[in-house]
Amino acid sequence: MSLNSFGHLFRVTTWGESHGPALGATVDGCPPGVPVTAEALQHWLDRRKPGQSKYTTQRREADEVEILSGVFEGVSTGTPIQLMIRNTDQRSKDYGDIAEKFRPGHADITYWQKYGIRDYRGGGRSSARETAARVAAGGVARAALGVLLPDLVITGCMVQMGPHGIDRACWDDEEIGRNPFWVPDAQAAEDWAGYLDGLRKSGDSVGAVIEVGAKGVPPGLGAPVYGKLDTDLAAAMMSINAVKGVEIGDGMSAAALTGSANADEITMGPDGPVYSSNHAGGILGGISTGQEVVVRFAVKPTSSILTPRKTITKSGEETEIVTKGRHDPCVGIRAVPVGEAMMACVLLDHVLLHRGQVGDGPRGQIG
Amino acid sequence: MSLNSFGHLFRVTTWGESHGPALGATVDGCPPGVPVTAEALQHWLDRRKPGQSKYTTQRREADEVEILSGVFEGVSTGTPIQLMIRNTDQRSKDYGDIAEKFRPGHADITYWQKYGIRDYRGGGRSSARETAARVAAGGVARAALGVLLPDLVITGCMVQMGPHGIDRACWDDEEIGRNPFWVPDAQAAEDWAGYLDGLRKSGDSVGAVIEVGAKGVPPGLGAPVYGKLDTDLAAAMMSINAVKGVEIGDGMSAAALTGSANADEITMGPDGPVYSSNHAGGILGGISTGQEVVVRFAVKPTSSILTPRKTITKSGEETEIVTKGRHDPCVGIRAVPVGEAMMACVLLDHVLLHRGQVGDGPRGQIG
Amino acid sequence: MSLNSFGHLFRVTTWGESHGPALGATVDGCPPGVPVTAEALQHWLDRRKPGQSKYTTQRREADEVEILSGVFEGVSTGTPIQLMIRNTDQRSKDYGDIAEKFRPGHADITYWQKYGIRDYRGGGRSSARETAARVAAGGVARAALGVLLPDLVITGCMVQMGPHGIDRACWDDEEIGRNPFWVPDAQAAEDWAGYLDGLRKSGDSVGAVIEVGAKGVPPGLGAPVYGKLDTDLAAAMMSINAVKGVEIGDGMSAAALTGSANADEITMGPDGPVYSSNHAGGILGGISTGQEVVVRFAVKPTSSILTPRKTITKSGEETEIVTKGRHDPCVGIRAVPVGEAMMACVLLDHVLLHRGQVGDGPRGQIG
Amino acid sequence: MSLNSFGHLFRVTTWGESHGPALGATVDGCPPGVPVTAEALQHWLDRRKPGQSKYTTQRREADEVEILSGVFEGVSTGTPIQLMIRNTDQRSKDYGDIAEKFRPGHADITYWQKYGIRDYRGGGRSSARETAARVAAGGVARAALGVLLPDLVITGCMVQMGPHGIDRACWDDEEIGRNPFWVPDAQAAEDWAGYLDGLRKSGDSVGAVIEVGAKGVPPGLGAPVYGKLDTDLAAAMMSINAVKGVEIGDGMSAAALTGSANADEITMGPDGPVYSSNHAGGILGGISTGQEVVVRFAVKPTSSILTPRKTITKSGEETEIVTKGRHDPCVGIRAVPVGEAMMACVLLDHVLLHRGQVGDGPRGQIG
Repeated sequence: MSLNSFGHLFRVTTWGESHGPALGATVDGCPPGVPVTAEALQHWLDRRKPGQSKYTTQRREADEVEILSGVFEGVSTGTPIQLMIRNTDQRSKDYGDIAEKFRPGHADITYWQKYGIRDYRGGGRSSARETAARVAAGGVARAALGVLLPDLVITGCMVQMGPHGIDRACWDDEEIGRNPFWVPDAQAAEDWAGYLDGLRKSGDSVGAVIEVGAKGVPPGLGAPVYGKLDTDLAAAMMSINAVKGVEIGDGMSAAALTGSANADEITMGPDGPVYSSNHAGGILGGISTGQEVVVRFAVKPTSSILTPRKTITKSGEETEIVTKGRHDPCVGIRAVPVGEAMMACVLLDHVLLHRGQVGDGPRGQIG
Repeated sequence: MSLNSFGHLFRVTTWGESHGPALGATVDGCPPGVPVTAEALQHWLDRRKPGQSKYTTQRREADEVEILSGVFEGVSTGTPIQLMIRNTDQRSKDYGDIAEKFRPGHADITYWQKYGIRDYRGGGRSSARETAARVAAGGVARAALGVLLPDLVITGCMVQMGPHGIDRACWDDEEIGRNPFWVPDAQAAEDWAGYLDGLRKSGDSVGAVIEVGAKGVPPGLGAPVYGKLDTDLAAAMMSINAVKGVEIGDGMSAAALTGSANADEITMGPDGPVYSSNHAGGILGGISTGQEVVVRFAVKPTSSILTPRKTITKSGEETEIVTKGRHDPCVGIRAVPVGEAMMACVLLDHVLLHRGQVGDGPRGQIG
Repeated sequence: MSLNSFGHLFRVTTWGESHGPALGATVDGCPPGVPVTAEALQHWLDRRKPGQSKYTTQRREADEVEILSGVFEGVSTGTPIQLMIRNTDQRSKDYGDIAEKFRPGHADITYWQKYGIRDYRGGGRSSARETAARVAAGGVARAALGVLLPDLVITGCMVQMGPHGIDRACWDDEEIGRNPFWVPDAQAAEDWAGYLDGLRKSGDSVGAVIEVGAKGVPPGLGAPVYGKLDTDLAAAMMSINAVKGVEIGDGMSAAALTGSANADEITMGPDGPVYSSNHAGGILGGISTGQEVVVRFAVKPTSSILTPRKTITKSGEETEIVTKGRHDPCVGIRAVPVGEAMMACVLLDHVLLHRGQVGDGPRGQIG
Repeated sequence: MSLNSFGHLFRVTTWGESHGPALGATVDGCPPGVPVTAEALQHWLDRRKPGQSKYTTQRREADEVEILSGVFEGVSTGTPIQLMIRNTDQRSKDYGDIAEKFRPGHADITYWQKYGIRDYRGGGRSSARETAARVAAGGVARAALGVLLPDLVITGCMVQMGPHGIDRACWDDEEIGRNPFWVPDAQAAEDWAGYLDGLRKSGDSVGAVIEVGAKGVPPGLGAPVYGKLDTDLAAAMMSINAVKGVEIGDGMSAAALTGSANADEITMGPDGPVYSSNHAGGILGGISTGQEVVVRFAVKPTSSILTPRKTITKSGEETEIVTKGRHDPCVGIRAVPVGEAMMACVLLDHVLLHRGQVGDGPRGQIG
């Protein structure tokens, strides 16, 4: 019921503000005996870390994760794993202007209205820095999945930046790690670099669409109604800062299809059912089919921009605001590892839930 | 943790299959003293009821709700409200062909793989009949909101059928109840009638996009991270059968915007902050702003169609399937009252959560 | 989070008042494929049913359970099982006197203070009739345990009535079913009959201590801190009406022991560890040892008695009350099957939880 | 659902092992605006701290608490409060003997059987060190209660050590803080000192009974069935290490009473109902009456003793064990502040729950 937790059996509670001493994740329910090291978690955190290219915020955070509990002699003990990341670069003076003014499009105003708290040092709990804790927790989930589903591969990438989509015909998994945008289309990477440079220089920002796929998910994960795999994925992705839309498979486009066009036809392959297409995104009736699970989410543009915008102060006076600080021109870039982490957490949770209720493996056989 | 429940303090657990004796909702956490009558709930159920026009399934279900507990002398007692709806028209013979074959695009195959159960009488727990229980529970939520937020107005409508959108310039709230599609654009209603007639006759089906708005939501509902109002709305809508995408405010389109275009500017009105636009859909950083909360979701086309599709049987043989039965050519139509019900449940839950943690009303004042 | 639910993965939500149309249990999380029939559940309900001897309330309730969902062709489907019991004998006129007066020792007054609701027909949600729903749900749990732990045996009995304990040297499991008190000591059964007859005639009532043992529980169920097996057992038993104390193993008496007297020494038997005694009640550090799990709970005397007691009315006037109605002179008798049901539910829940996190069976081997 | 969390709206998750780098509590759901300082929390921690008299373990732990999040400018923000306590004195060499042998009466063996993990440095997650985190979290709960229920007073004390009870006629609240046992009876304090000295020197240990009372609890907290105030108190206390029994009001003794003796008669006082006695321990039907809430729990004797006991090794060999280390001869002493902390957490949680569902204050008026 905690408002800062997600997951059922594999349950992650994050804590910490952008300008407090530290932030982290309390990870409960990890199976025992899973190899977990700070180094392995750091690998994932480094992918999300700010300041890695000119396209992300220049805030300098080491994002070094410490494991404070739940791991003994290199393996998980089955008890809570506490992951802590110290905040080291908190130049809060940059934020001086926002102590009294609300940034349009930012949580400043609602946070104040709800709690009566204005953390003038930064976004407090609303800051995207919180996602570092998710990535660390996702690293634990990946480690457990490595034991339970060794063939699982989770891949996130950017498929749209602002109005510019990719050419899916040019999709190359290898390309994803080669450019600063995690985009699988080399030409798009090149084009977007110029586009984003222009935006950055003009002090503006832009949104993006992230796609996360998971190959090797067995059939049978999920449940028919509220415990649906897609329900939990939608919640997980929508809970990421700045996300405004979530799609499974064809997503919003499914509305435009006829039933005959939408249904993925089924034939029998040597290892079980084979589908002619994947409009469903690997999930039917809330339960995984065994196809690739495909989720997309839209990240809105950063609201902390240099372009002056009309706003009000806490005392209700009308004014303008320009947010200096060190912000991401396209915060969607750093959302890629976050989306992967959420996918890992949700999948592990459903593997454990399924094992709890049904036992290992699917229960109904085909053929 | 129940896989068939949603909500935190206002918690709804639905139960029942399409062809069992009954289905219903166990509604826990309703405040005491709320006027609740079967008649009032029936009003909402009748909107979702099948067989009301030629555009919905001809299955004849009275969908009469009985209140078995939690209401005494016309008001809620504060204890669980049990809502039961008997299934009366279960012509399961129509489904004969699907006992052995899996319908492409339907939960048949994953349900079997997960549970080893094949309810040859119909979709079992995956059937859209489950949404009747949601609508009944939503009626209770609306009654409680009527007491706690008397100015709240929740309105669902269809904004796209298949490839055909509405003209937002022609939006007329009054029109929504006048046509069988819950569409606010009279011209669209007329055009879609012809389009859907054609589809229905050809034995095909089509998807839709539903939009649900809530006016009169106070600022301060929600939380910055996993207990976000938008996270719970996304989960609520994605948990509805056949939904493949969920959007808040600008949704997926937010990705295409720049920060300067996306930010809703703020000025000061006589009663508090006033926003120049509502790209945010009434939610910033997971917390309501006081603007209209706007959610959209895409419903894929019904997979039970007359067009023959390739599939396999439980024993793994390849075959074709034609689903006769009595199905909705556009199941999105009946999803409108369901989306409204989910909105009501989520809002009530967050009103209670906010009151629990913070007390009545927002805590930070402006002006 | 529902206030009317218990359990984690095997989750039971009960609903219904003593004088409403029906009551029941929504049982979620049962594994699929478990044989469940109304007849088998009725067997357990009949043990709790009122009016079976002169020592229990003469209210005539058939307590017939209907399965409304979640079971298909005699086995559980893995979806929610709705169990409904109609109230048939609701002679609420007997309760007329309590419409305005609060019964001392009864929930009347607190229920009113909390909810502002006074169900003058009876105890509303506070009535012990609610426990019928628990027994029905416990029947489902037993059925699932019959598949997962076929050697498990759960036995409840009464070990104290009023001030009279049993002679443990005379314990005979066979005797439990032969007398109206579920007492394992034939002599006690005889003595208590006379004692309770006297009390009943004088219009008074008396408390009792119930003991529930579970043999065949594998080692490894539970968790070290809040998810302890004993924490959940304590909560489960304390949630039964009129229970005021719960003990595991030696319980309150453990306080009087020295460490050397309390520790159950361990030797090695052919099938694993063997303990010299069972002070621990089968649970160490929140986790089952493989010994018999032993729980005891104290049931206070019924507060609805014929002896006049001072009280006040809703309007604050001082008065006296005599509760006529049809009440149990020792409600502890009917708590025996309820305690067994709660034990079954908790054990099944922990079997599923353990399987979810750790997989089948204990993980650490000995020898 | 986390196995290391307790509470509904005020939710505490503890983490950390006895010999890891740190332990702590993630506290979610605290109302915003509550004054919280490390100094105030330290006050409560110092009461539980080891090494304060010769009657507690000589392990030297500063138990200094750091607030890592959720507090800004001295008040809670409404977001998760992370409380961390570094482990500083981890002389694990003392525990060498227990790496292979299981201590009888200790969680060593079940922890191994469940997780396959043997933390030879100490008790791992089963150590009573975990309770430091509870006391810290309880300090936050007390701070919030100080705002919401300023008249509330929570007092824990020891009422039995080994076989020796107190003389309730000599009860003096002032005495509790004057002796090392938190006992309200000065004569008992003197007698127990000699008794415990003897036990300590002989290398043995002994159990205790702790009583925690809360005065100033308003009527109406709790719920009639599983969300009972007493259910949550029973779970909270039973979850403390070494607790084997929990009682509310008369507790196990209620079984021996007749209905006429047990019922607390009600008269009308100037401020509302007045009760002639408090057999109920301030709770009727799961809901607080406004009287003092009284809980007792039994703590078994420490199992780490110098007296040799028979046991087995991980490889199944029979042997004897003597636990040197630095252990508490009566661990019940340090359980007093822990019991108080759990009382505070449960009460705050129910204040928030009641406010969430019903609003501020009781709903039904008397008089």
